[in-house]
Amino acid sequence: MINTLYLPELREMLATQDDAGLQEFCTALHPGRTAEFMEGLSAAEAWAVLLTTDLSTRVEIFGFLPEEVQTEIVEVSDPQEISELIAQMPPDDRVDLLNQVDPAVVEATLPLVPTEERRDILRLRAYPEGTAGAVMTTEVARLSESATAGEALQELGRQAQDLETIYYVYIVDDENHLRGLVSARQLVTHIGRPQTPIADLMERDLVTVEANDDQEAVARKVADYDFLAIPVVDDEQHLVGIITHDDIIDVLQEEATEDAHLAGAVEPLDLSYMATPVLRLTRLRAVWLAVLFAAALLTALALRSYHGTLERVAWLAWFVPLIISSGGNTGSQSATLVIRALTTKEITPDDWVKVMWRELAVGVLLGILLSAAGYIAACTMGLPWFDAFVLPITLMLVVICGTLVGSLLPLLFKRLGLDPALMSTPFVAGIIDIVGIVVLMQVAMLLVRDFAP
Amino acid sequence: MINTLYLPELREMLATQDDAGLQEFCTALHPGRTAEFMEGLSAAEAWAVLLTTDLSTRVEIFGFLPEEVQTEIVEVSDPQEISELIAQMPPDDRVDLLNQVDPAVVEATLPLVPTEERRDILRLRAYPEGTAGAVMTTEVARLSESATAGEALQELGRQAQDLETIYYVYIVDDENHLRGLVSARQLVTHIGRPQTPIADLMERDLVTVEANDDQEAVARKVADYDFLAIPVVDDEQHLVGIITHDDIIDVLQEEATEDAHLAGAVEPLDLSYMATPVLRLTRLRAVWLAVLFAAALLTALALRSYHGTLERVAWLAWFVPLIISSGGNTGSQSATLVIRALTTKEITPDDWVKVMWRELAVGVLLGILLSAAGYIAACTMGLPWFDAFVLPITLMLVVICGTLVGSLLPLLFKRLGLDPALMSTPFVAGIIDIVGIVVLMQVAMLLVRDFAP
Repeated sequence: MINTLYLPELREMLATQDDAGLQEFCTALHPGRTAEFMEGLSAAEAWAVLLTTDLSTRVEIFGFLPEEVQTEIVEVSDPQEISELIAQMPPDDRVDLLNQVDPAVVEATLPLVPTEERRDILRLRAYPEGTAGAVMTTEVARLSESATAGEALQELGRQAQDLETIYYVYIVDDENHLRGLVSARQLVTHIGRPQTPIADLMERDLVTVEANDDQEAVARKVADYDFLAIPVVDDEQHLVGIITHDDIIDVLQEEATEDAHLAGAVEPLDLSYMATPVLRLTRLRAVWLAVLFAAALLTALALRSYHGTLERVAWLAWFVPLIISSGGNTGSQSATLVIRALTTKEITPDDWVKVMWRELAVGVLLGILLSAAGYIAACTMGLPWFDAFVLPITLMLVVICGTLVGSLLPLLFKRLGLDPALMSTPFVAGIIDIVGIVVLMQVAMLLVRDFAP
Repeated sequence: MINTLYLPELREMLATQDDAGLQEFCTALHPGRTAEFMEGLSAAEAWAVLLTTDLSTRVEIFGFLPEEVQTEIVEVSDPQEISELIAQMPPDDRVDLLNQVDPAVVEATLPLVPTEERRDILRLRAYPEGTAGAVMTTEVARLSESATAGEALQELGRQAQDLETIYYVYIVDDENHLRGLVSARQLVTHIGRPQTPIADLMERDLVTVEANDDQEAVARKVADYDFLAIPVVDDEQHLVGIITHDDIIDVLQEEATEDAHLAGAVEPLDLSYMATPVLRLTRLRAVWLAVLFAAALLTALALRSYHGTLERVAWLAWFVPLIISSGGNTGSQSATLVIRALTTKEITPDDWVKVMWRELAVGVLLGILLSAAGYIAACTMGLPWFDAFVLPITLMLVVICGTLVGSLLPLLFKRLGLDPALMSTPFVAGIIDIVGIVVLMQVAMLLVRDFAP
């Protein structure tokens, strides 16, 4: 969505080099809104606008620009100016950004970044994407246990401008082992009693994560406990960073998008839908389509092998799509419910027996419903009343099979250490399709009277 | 997932009335963890454990218990004790809870709640579910513009225990009109200069929401701007409450679950999967299954009307599931991508032309791929080389149709003010099924040579 309200003015100011006007534009609004008004500018134009304002405002607005624009700016602008920007960016954000940028540009820019920041970048880049280490920030308020509440507040005041969050102060010993935390709330509550020792206020039973933990598990932990941030430690309990609430929201959204895409049988995109080139979009979709096509070929082979049956009882062919879609839809529903319950940690693979009974019960009830509808439809379409029983019997079996396959396969995938979301709706439907055809034909061969072989 | 580690000890302590031990259990850990260890206890047992500790700890742990357990505790415990709990709960959480509880119990409990809290509950309950008003809290730190930074910090210190968030202080005039905000970060930064007027520090360009705004739009705003909280105002700019980051995460998760369920053609559940009774689960699934079944009946009618064609060219029936699943899967992919892009506000219905061209391009490319595969499969299965062209032509048309229908229908739904997520994967597939059959038959009638009518 592009907000074009200010675009002509901005371009006019750029053309006339009205730096004062542009600077005013950069500082008048919340940086997030300023960034919104800049959408529609080219990367070069956006960067020219940002160069008119001071470095810290520039960093803030830049952080709200769309990922693609950020990447392009870094790739096309003066490396010296970019290195200053990068040195000031939040540690986690700049690593994300550099991971998107052309590696040749990164190599040209990094040597210009001050040593300390450069080391920090290299350290964070060592963590694989999708881990806690890759989303954490290293700018943390640290204090020793011997401080008082007053000293802690003073220290926080000195550091506040540079810290991503000031809401927790972490207490570490001389070797940077994490000992506890004090919340800004506690400190502010004791503002009248500045001599109170930190040791009396600090929370010692901490929920921590390890740098190699999966980012989704971390996000869910923070969401469950309503934390503003969670400390990240290494395997010797050294405090290496924190992950803050805004990154948690990003992770949760990213994972929700990924799960939604998988549920629709699309390989998750790295970029947004509009920013993904058509060829790449095609490739990400083709993978799954090809797999599903191969599965669907089995239905053609199955139907060919029942060639004789279909010739003798021609009306069977009419109901093939109805049967397989009923089974597929029921299976999709079960898979959807179970995958989401697994994602939100509401169930684990150990609950499979309980899940199976629930789904069996639901399957029988839904089966009764669809069977009744199917029998009426079959009779209405002119089948003999006895032959028409092929439909309800098949539907009953296929629907129950759908609920069981749809619910148990994701659990099995999870147990095997695979992503249960791979059991996408179309994939489950594909499996049930072939089951549906076989069941329909077998039931018909047993039941239909003019079936003299 | 139940953590049964402490259950025997807890039950033992309850049996021997070891209140000191239970109290120790309640205060030793983070309340979220304590609540986890209590899972598996009955509602009555959990409440008995909580009654051993002080009210504020009780409220905290209670807040982390699963929704179902909270509801049951309120329904089965002493109304006087419950009213004390409710009076201390965060305003937004207690309203959510009371909305789940048996109305008769609410009516018995509310008169026992102190007047001020009772009024607050009634006011918040007046906002419809799903609006900003229904998730906001009314406990906000307010100050007048004439205060200094030092006074603001002192005031925050006095109120900190009662506030849900202390990270923003809202500046209001005498009539409670919202004028601006100061962050705790700003106040802490100026801790050495307590005389600084608030007016110098305050942010005046605020992003606000109205109490009747949709909760999902609000959540997305907060996520976009990385806020910790957002102020809620009425139509005269009076500050009526705030929505905090933890509620935002809950809303985003709730909406992600809802969208996932809709994508799998399940009416969203109010409760968790395991907590939803089988009959209710069946009903929520039966609605969509019935709709999809009715759509699928059209395929049976279509195939019956092509009865003659099917008898003359029997092999057409073999390929029906293959054709319709290819179209359905392509359409599901498009719908998934477009729905998610709409949800994350990446596109709007106005982008329909751009989306259409993209999907057309992807459709042609995917069509070429599947057509090639389809032609090879048809020849391998023994069809004459010329007749076999029915397959690639049909696949090409059906796949393109899938991408267009799958992408444009959600956009149309959005434009009409409906939830685009209603265009679930199975629903799009259902529409393409019937298209697939008609296209296959028409192409066959045009192409196949032994089609003497």
